[in-house]
Amino acid sequence: MHTVSFGSDNHSGAHPIILKALQDINAGYWHGYGEEEYTETVQAKIAALFGPDARCLLLMTGTGANVLALQSLLKSYEAVFCAETAHINMHEAGAVQKFTQGRLIAIPTPDGKLSPKLIAPHISLMTDQHMSQPRIISISQSTEYGTLYTLDEIKALSAFAKDNNLLLHIDGARLANAAVALNCSFAEMTADCGVDIVSLGATKNGCLFGEALIFINHPDAAKDAVYYRKQLTQLVSKMRYLTIQMETYIDKGIWKENALNANRMAKLLAEKLSEIREVTITQPVYVNAVFAILPAHIIPALQAKYHFYLWNEHRNEVRLMCSWNTSEGMIDSLVDDIRSLLT
Amino acid sequence: MHTVSFGSDNHSGAHPIILKALQDINAGYWHGYGEEEYTETVQAKIAALFGPDARCLLLMTGTGANVLALQSLLKSYEAVFCAETAHINMHEAGAVQKFTQGRLIAIPTPDGKLSPKLIAPHISLMTDQHMSQPRIISISQSTEYGTLYTLDEIKALSAFAKDNNLLLHIDGARLANAAVALNCSFAEMTADCGVDIVSLGATKNGCLFGEALIFINHPDAAKDAVYYRKQLTQLVSKMRYLTIQMETYIDKGIWKENALNANRMAKLLAEKLSEIREVTITQPVYVNAVFAILPAHIIPALQAKYHFYLWNEHRNEVRLMCSWNTSEGMIDSLVDDIRSLLT
Amino acid sequence: MHTVSFGSDNHSGAHPIILKALQDINAGYWHGYGEEEYTETVQAKIAALFGPDARCLLLMTGTGANVLALQSLLKSYEAVFCAETAHINMHEAGAVQKFTQGRLIAIPTPDGKLSPKLIAPHISLMTDQHMSQPRIISISQSTEYGTLYTLDEIKALSAFAKDNNLLLHIDGARLANAAVALNCSFAEMTADCGVDIVSLGATKNGCLFGEALIFINHPDAAKDAVYYRKQLTQLVSKMRYLTIQMETYIDKGIWKENALNANRMAKLLAEKLSEIREVTITQPVYVNAVFAILPAHIIPALQAKYHFYLWNEHRNEVRLMCSWNTSEGMIDSLVDDIRSLLT
Amino acid sequence: MHTVSFGSDNHSGAHPIILKALQDINAGYWHGYGEEEYTETVQAKIAALFGPDARCLLLMTGTGANVLALQSLLKSYEAVFCAETAHINMHEAGAVQKFTQGRLIAIPTPDGKLSPKLIAPHISLMTDQHMSQPRIISISQSTEYGTLYTLDEIKALSAFAKDNNLLLHIDGARLANAAVALNCSFAEMTADCGVDIVSLGATKNGCLFGEALIFINHPDAAKDAVYYRKQLTQLVSKMRYLTIQMETYIDKGIWKENALNANRMAKLLAEKLSEIREVTITQPVYVNAVFAILPAHIIPALQAKYHFYLWNEHRNEVRLMCSWNTSEGMIDSLVDDIRSLLT
Repeated sequence: MHTVSFGSDNHSGAHPIILKALQDINAGYWHGYGEEEYTETVQAKIAALFGPDARCLLLMTGTGANVLALQSLLKSYEAVFCAETAHINMHEAGAVQKFTQGRLIAIPTPDGKLSPKLIAPHISLMTDQHMSQPRIISISQSTEYGTLYTLDEIKALSAFAKDNNLLLHIDGARLANAAVALNCSFAEMTADCGVDIVSLGATKNGCLFGEALIFINHPDAAKDAVYYRKQLTQLVSKMRYLTIQMETYIDKGIWKENALNANRMAKLLAEKLSEIREVTITQPVYVNAVFAILPAHIIPALQAKYHFYLWNEHRNEVRLMCSWNTSEGMIDSLVDDIRSLLT
Repeated sequence: MHTVSFGSDNHSGAHPIILKALQDINAGYWHGYGEEEYTETVQAKIAALFGPDARCLLLMTGTGANVLALQSLLKSYEAVFCAETAHINMHEAGAVQKFTQGRLIAIPTPDGKLSPKLIAPHISLMTDQHMSQPRIISISQSTEYGTLYTLDEIKALSAFAKDNNLLLHIDGARLANAAVALNCSFAEMTADCGVDIVSLGATKNGCLFGEALIFINHPDAAKDAVYYRKQLTQLVSKMRYLTIQMETYIDKGIWKENALNANRMAKLLAEKLSEIREVTITQPVYVNAVFAILPAHIIPALQAKYHFYLWNEHRNEVRLMCSWNTSEGMIDSLVDDIRSLLT
Repeated sequence: MHTVSFGSDNHSGAHPIILKALQDINAGYWHGYGEEEYTETVQAKIAALFGPDARCLLLMTGTGANVLALQSLLKSYEAVFCAETAHINMHEAGAVQKFTQGRLIAIPTPDGKLSPKLIAPHISLMTDQHMSQPRIISISQSTEYGTLYTLDEIKALSAFAKDNNLLLHIDGARLANAAVALNCSFAEMTADCGVDIVSLGATKNGCLFGEALIFINHPDAAKDAVYYRKQLTQLVSKMRYLTIQMETYIDKGIWKENALNANRMAKLLAEKLSEIREVTITQPVYVNAVFAILPAHIIPALQAKYHFYLWNEHRNEVRLMCSWNTSEGMIDSLVDDIRSLLT
Repeated sequence: MHTVSFGSDNHSGAHPIILKALQDINAGYWHGYGEEEYTETVQAKIAALFGPDARCLLLMTGTGANVLALQSLLKSYEAVFCAETAHINMHEAGAVQKFTQGRLIAIPTPDGKLSPKLIAPHISLMTDQHMSQPRIISISQSTEYGTLYTLDEIKALSAFAKDNNLLLHIDGARLANAAVALNCSFAEMTADCGVDIVSLGATKNGCLFGEALIFINHPDAAKDAVYYRKQLTQLVSKMRYLTIQMETYIDKGIWKENALNANRMAKLLAEKLSEIREVTITQPVYVNAVFAILPAHIIPALQAKYHFYLWNEHRNEVRLMCSWNTSEGMIDSLVDDIRSLLT
């Protein structure tokens, strides 16, 4: 346990209102596995945030949501394009390949963002029965570098996808952070841009655990996904504890309040760090991540007090993540300590 | 939501002490994914209940624990023997096949229990490169019929397994109920009987969610399982909420208290039902399940008031499950209503 | 090498005309992987034997054809019903599970034949998200017991399949033997009976290697299968050597001539054996297999001279397979030796 | 059918001696599936070419050999490093992922060759339970660009592999061409360099079909591979036709004679082309491939007469493959036609 951590937004706990909701739903006997009206209603409510024809399934982990998303739309001889830095490529221990038996094509990018231009050369090679066939583009919004796709960039990817008979998936582990940063609704960022399927994360942003998979359209795939979710071992027996979190997260505006705070704290941190001559901010700060190069000699002492990751040890680049309950005091304290260590 | 349910032990909520523990651990920043000392300690504590060399991994769902158990010890050309009624065969939507690509050999049984005699004929057919090779025997303790293996029966299976170069897995979704019914420790029922690997369930018996996989020995497989757990999407980011449940479940004796109540209520229910001439108990009641044949005409009215499953519609057999918070009042009420409906 | 073998019809060599055809096609340079007109033409010609909309893919092994058939039509959460004795269940080392990640439900039968009555009880259990969903019925024609489905029996299975939203697959490793036994065309036995997909074997019946997968309808699955065939590693580079075998097999009537001989020899063998008091024929002889109980004491000496399998050692039942080049002289010799050993 | 093709070495037919051998082995009855002494002997003979402890399994396709090689040594959470241009990455339709469920990490290279320097940065990222774990380096010898690893380069990769607990696989679809180019034995290029496992191709170099997988050591994996081969549907029933090809290929020196011719023809072609001012050779010619940039306007007319592939359409680079039966006359004719088209 750390008093403060900038290591990851999943180092923070759950919002008290979420925790309270767990208690409120504890009494009584409930059908398991979401086979009751309440879960149906909450899933429909979340789906409605993404569009009139959308369908939603709840599950427990972000990797689970990503794997289920791809499985629902992929045959094993088909391929998924993603950024080399994508969570599905780097940090899911090959779960996508394990479950779908399909191929990931990881494309190097400067900033974690894919584009039609980066994908097109790969497609041109995948012509006949000897090659996996292109099927899905998977992007992270916001990305693993804290960067963001603009709505126009998403639309461009979606148009490119349709031209090439591809589908577009968003890994939205931090979709709330992206939405408040772009000041748009979930629907405006997804359905209205032509996105096909979205992994919506809530765990990092104030839940104990809680993710949703949203099929913007593709009702047949959504039906398949009910069974694939069970095969993926992501179907929870005491579903009420998952459902109530997701409902509370959405209904009480926690998603927005929490994301706003995390983003605001990252902006604040970046501003303060940029005033320090010895520190270089390396990526634009759109959401809740700050990437910065620190003088090497202060990093160990700083890590002794605050938890955070050395992102690129060759150039002393660190990643500082803010979360829903990062406070101004924590930012001040961190910056003060950096200044002290530098003098 | 039902006021009372005999449908499943997972219809009940969480024990208040478990719920309270979630709140107590909410403050502060924690490393994710169990990559901290606390989870290591709790896993070691649970492992120690099964033997000095045992190792433990926490995960979220019972299906997850079973799939991970088999994956850790199985090659895809190998086969697992289980009862036809086993959860891994009937109620996991093929998750074992999906993940392991291996073969399940489902053997019909009268009471959900395997034996060397039932398995042997299958092994004799699996001789050469054309057949999947026998590798694991998987039994449920207690079984899906509420029956129990005695310690001697487990030992016999284990000896048979060793003679045939097989391993023995226990699906212990209700291992606590079995342990209190047999009045033995987890170690006495597993390690001391020669069992290799155990899925230990806690969800049904008073947690929100919480399962553990215990490698009695097989340290190499336990190391593999760390990675397979991630691939299975069962690695939780905010692990503390899982760890605290499992610790509380064990340390506070909740596992025992809850299992005792569930079993006691089932015994009570069976006793009272057996006094009713029109009702026939169809399986011996060892743990928390009562299987009974009711007169067909009273079932709809009874189901309107209490949730429970019609197990075998051809013979009007119902399954009545008791849980950790089933009360004598609920039993009395159910039995009274049956009597009323019969007159 | 054996001078004579009744062990399997794949113990025999290739028909001289097939072998000659290999030589005739050896000259010149050919596009690989069937990406030329000749293979397209031959595939179309074979498909036409099964119906006007049928499509055909060539491959090398019977297990390959079966796995590709099921993969093309199955999602991993779906299940295939087959007889417990089916080749896909017993003698493919779990290849179906390995490749498709799906579930096989093996149903005990007296004679290797499935029926709606045998399948129906399983379907009734597979209702919700916890169970694999029923999708395919797979039958062997002729069966592993040398028995045959009549056209009416196939039609009944097909009607049952349609009623239950299932598809019907035939493992036709010995389809030629079945066709000549029933005196019908391939189309009459498959498309006209409502079959969906057929594995057509030619290896056992006179080729070096050669199998075809026929989609009676399902053009989309047939397109998928082109890629799955490559993934299954069944796409041959020097395809001409496969194509010419299949063309010769069909065009020169080798399929018929060879199957007729094998069946006729089995009938002859059965007749002669049935005249021996100490021998009991245990299955009706429809095609090229004779199952018979021999006196235990003569089996070792007989096996020293002729290769054949002891099918059921508990009751001294042997399997005697005839092939396309089994001769009357071989039958006479075998029967004479049995008589000698008995005196 | 083409009179001449420079499209691929698999466009050529089979060596007459190989074809003759098929006829010679056609008589009599043989045990199927290699379950006889002859196949055991031939496998042992081939294995012996690679080292005293080597073991060999025969199979039918090169993709089959590669998939089986990786499956035998890989767990699904582990990863294989290969060049982006590797056959297993680009031209097997994802067969490796399909069968092994593991991860391929495709590394861009200038010439189709991996090196420790290219691999090391990837390993440094794969540290914990969130990442697939590094396990195998797979190289092609000769490569898809017609380039070659020197023995020292293989040794360097092997040493790097051992330092990092990795194994080294060679995709030797054209191993014979490499061996004669390097003027070394198979053992000198593999076992003596520390290689772990080798796919040995014979199809392209004069067989109808014929591949072998050689375990230099790893006897346990070799045992597993017997079953995985069956699961991969690569176990041939009439094995004699595969075995005799491989024996003849080795015993009669066909592997050497054929590879020498193919390489010699490619050298000759390159020499003659390099004399043409308008033509640029783009890769060094070590084995049987010539990569060359031709003036765009002559390509269509040339392709009308000779089959070959446009490798990189952006720079008019073509690939011209020579095979075991490419003749000087064919080379002369091609070069003459190029000259004519240029004037």
